[in-house]
Amino acid sequence: MSEHRGEFDLIRRYFADGYPQCENIRLGNGDDASVIALPADMDLAQSIDTQVADVHFPAKAPAHLIAGRALRCAVSDLAAMGAWPQGFHLALTLPNADEEWLADFAHGLRQTAHELGIGLLGGDTTSGPTTVITIAVQGLLPQNERLIRSGAEAGDDIWLTGNLGAATLALDTVINEPARQTEFTQAYYHPQVHIAFGQLLLTVASACLDISDGLLQDATHIAKQSNVTMHIEAAWIPTVVPMSHCNWCRCLTGGDDYQLLFTAPPEYRSRIEAFATTVGLDQCLRIGSVKGGAAKVELCHNGEPLELATSGYQHF
Amino acid sequence: MSEHRGEFDLIRRYFADGYPQCENIRLGNGDDASVIALPADMDLAQSIDTQVADVHFPAKAPAHLIAGRALRCAVSDLAAMGAWPQGFHLALTLPNADEEWLADFAHGLRQTAHELGIGLLGGDTTSGPTTVITIAVQGLLPQNERLIRSGAEAGDDIWLTGNLGAATLALDTVINEPARQTEFTQAYYHPQVHIAFGQLLLTVASACLDISDGLLQDATHIAKQSNVTMHIEAAWIPTVVPMSHCNWCRCLTGGDDYQLLFTAPPEYRSRIEAFATTVGLDQCLRIGSVKGGAAKVELCHNGEPLELATSGYQHF
Repeated sequence: MSEHRGEFDLIRRYFADGYPQCENIRLGNGDDASVIALPADMDLAQSIDTQVADVHFPAKAPAHLIAGRALRCAVSDLAAMGAWPQGFHLALTLPNADEEWLADFAHGLRQTAHELGIGLLGGDTTSGPTTVITIAVQGLLPQNERLIRSGAEAGDDIWLTGNLGAATLALDTVINEPARQTEFTQAYYHPQVHIAFGQLLLTVASACLDISDGLLQDATHIAKQSNVTMHIEAAWIPTVVPMSHCNWCRCLTGGDDYQLLFTAPPEYRSRIEAFATTVGLDQCLRIGSVKGGAAKVELCHNGEPLELATSGYQHF
Repeated sequence: MSEHRGEFDLIRRYFADGYPQCENIRLGNGDDASVIALPADMDLAQSIDTQVADVHFPAKAPAHLIAGRALRCAVSDLAAMGAWPQGFHLALTLPNADEEWLADFAHGLRQTAHELGIGLLGGDTTSGPTTVITIAVQGLLPQNERLIRSGAEAGDDIWLTGNLGAATLALDTVINEPARQTEFTQAYYHPQVHIAFGQLLLTVASACLDISDGLLQDATHIAKQSNVTMHIEAAWIPTVVPMSHCNWCRCLTGGDDYQLLFTAPPEYRSRIEAFATTVGLDQCLRIGSVKGGAAKVELCHNGEPLELATSGYQHF
C-alpha cells in the first residue's frame, strides 16, 4: 500500500483538526498519549462506550449519523453524572479505509463534537472484519459532587426527562431503510444529551442514570444500588404511543432513548420544574416514587402490579 | 437468556473485584461513569489502544495471555510519556459470553494489572461477531513534564531500551500454535513495559516513543515531528538475530516489541546508563544520532545508506 494512503495520513487527515478546543489540554492528538491538566477544584468523570455495526447500528447507515449517534450515546453517560464534557478518545476499527465513508464519519463526528462542546484528545484506528466504534469520554465535575445510582431514598419522587419509545420504534426503519429520516429515526440518530440539566440536577437529585437499555431494566440499577423499591405508575410514563397501543411495552423495555431517570426529594419539585424550563426541556415528569422494601422495580396501574414479558435489552 | 447469565452479572462477576486500588478514585466501576481526582501538581496522560482477534492476536490464543498483552501494549504508551499508570477503562466486544474464556481473560487482566500497578476504573461489554479489546489507559505526570515526539535536536544521541525482533519472529508460532511458549512468544505475550525507566527519562530525554509498528517506521514519527534526520547505524541496533540472518530486516520493521526509542543530549550518556542499571534493564544502547536536514530516517552501514523494502506495519 502506498505511503500516502497509510494509517498515519488517514488519521491525520480526518481526525486531526476542526474539533472544539479545550483549555485543559496540554498535549492533543498525535503523540503516544494526550495530556490534560485538571482545575484544582474539579474531578474527572469518565466512561467508555462501544457500538458494533449491525448490533448497535446498521452498517449501511450514513456514516455521519453513525458517528454523531455514537458520540451522543457516550456523552450521555457524562450528563447522567452531572459532568461537563471535556474530551474524548476514539478507537475505530474498520474493514477497510474507505475514504468517502471516513470523510462522512469525521464530518458527523466534528459536527456533533461542536454541538456537545467536547474535544478530540486522541485515538487509535485499526483494521478488523467489522466496524466497531469505541468512544472514551470524560467531563469535569465540581470536586466531590456527582450524580450516582446509589442515593435514592424512600419518599423521593422518580422523574423522567422526556418521552420514551421513539428510538426503539425507529429500529424497523433504521434497519431496513437506514438513510430514511422520520421523527422516530431523528430520536434514534440524534438522542438528546441532557448536559445542562444534568449539571443542574447535581443540587437536587439523589440518584440518576441515562436510560440506554430500557426504562424498566435501568430503573432496576437504581433499585439495587440504592436498595429501594422503584414504584412506577404505568399511566404517568410519557411514551410516544398510548398505553392501549400494541407497541407500548416496547417503549418501556426498548433501549436507545437516553433520557435521564432520576430521583429527588419532593421538596425540590418546583425547583426541578424551573430547571427544566430553564434548559428548554420539552417535558420533565414525575413517574412514580421511591419506597422502602425489596430492591426492585414495581410497575403499577390502577393500584395493581403490571408484569411485562421482558425488562430490557440483553447484550448477550 | 436467563437473568443470572445476563450482561450485568457477567460484568460484575469478572470485572468488579481484585484489581489494584487507586487512591485517586472517587467512584469506581458500576455507575454511569467513574470519577477520579488529580493531585494538584500532576497532569493526566491518556491513550487508547485496540486489539482485534486474528489481526493483532490469534483468536485461539489463551485468553489470559491475550488480556495481559492487550493491557501491556496499552500501558506502554504511558511509559513512553514518562507517566505513572493510574487506571484503565476496558471495552470488550465478544461473539458470545463464554464463561470459561471470560474467567481466564479476567484472570490474566487482573494479574497484569497488579504487575503494572493499574486499577480498573470501568468498562463496557458488548456483543459482536469478532473479539475486539479496546483499553483506555491513563497515568500521572508531574505538572508540565512529559516525553514527547517533537523535541529531538541535532547532536542528540538515539537510544533503544532493548532487543528488537523477538515478538515479530514469534508470530509464526503464535498464529499456528497459540498456546506454545517459547522465548520469542514470551516477548510477544509479555512485552516489557518500561514504566520506571520512562519516568527517569523525563529528566534527560528530548524525544521518546514506544515501538509498536517497527523501529524504522516509528523512528519516522520522531523525525517528522521533530523535523530532524534520525541517523541510525544498522550494526548498532540490538536484534535477536545477527545482521547476516535472513530475518534481520524483520527485526527492524516488525512491530510488537514495545521497546522505548528515545533521543537525549550526549552529556546525559552516563546518567542514562546509570538509570538503566537502576531499573534493571538488560541493555540500553545508543543506535545512532540526530542530525539536521530532511525529516527522515537514515539507516546506514559502513557509511552507506541501507534501503529496506518496507518500513513497518501498515494497518490498512
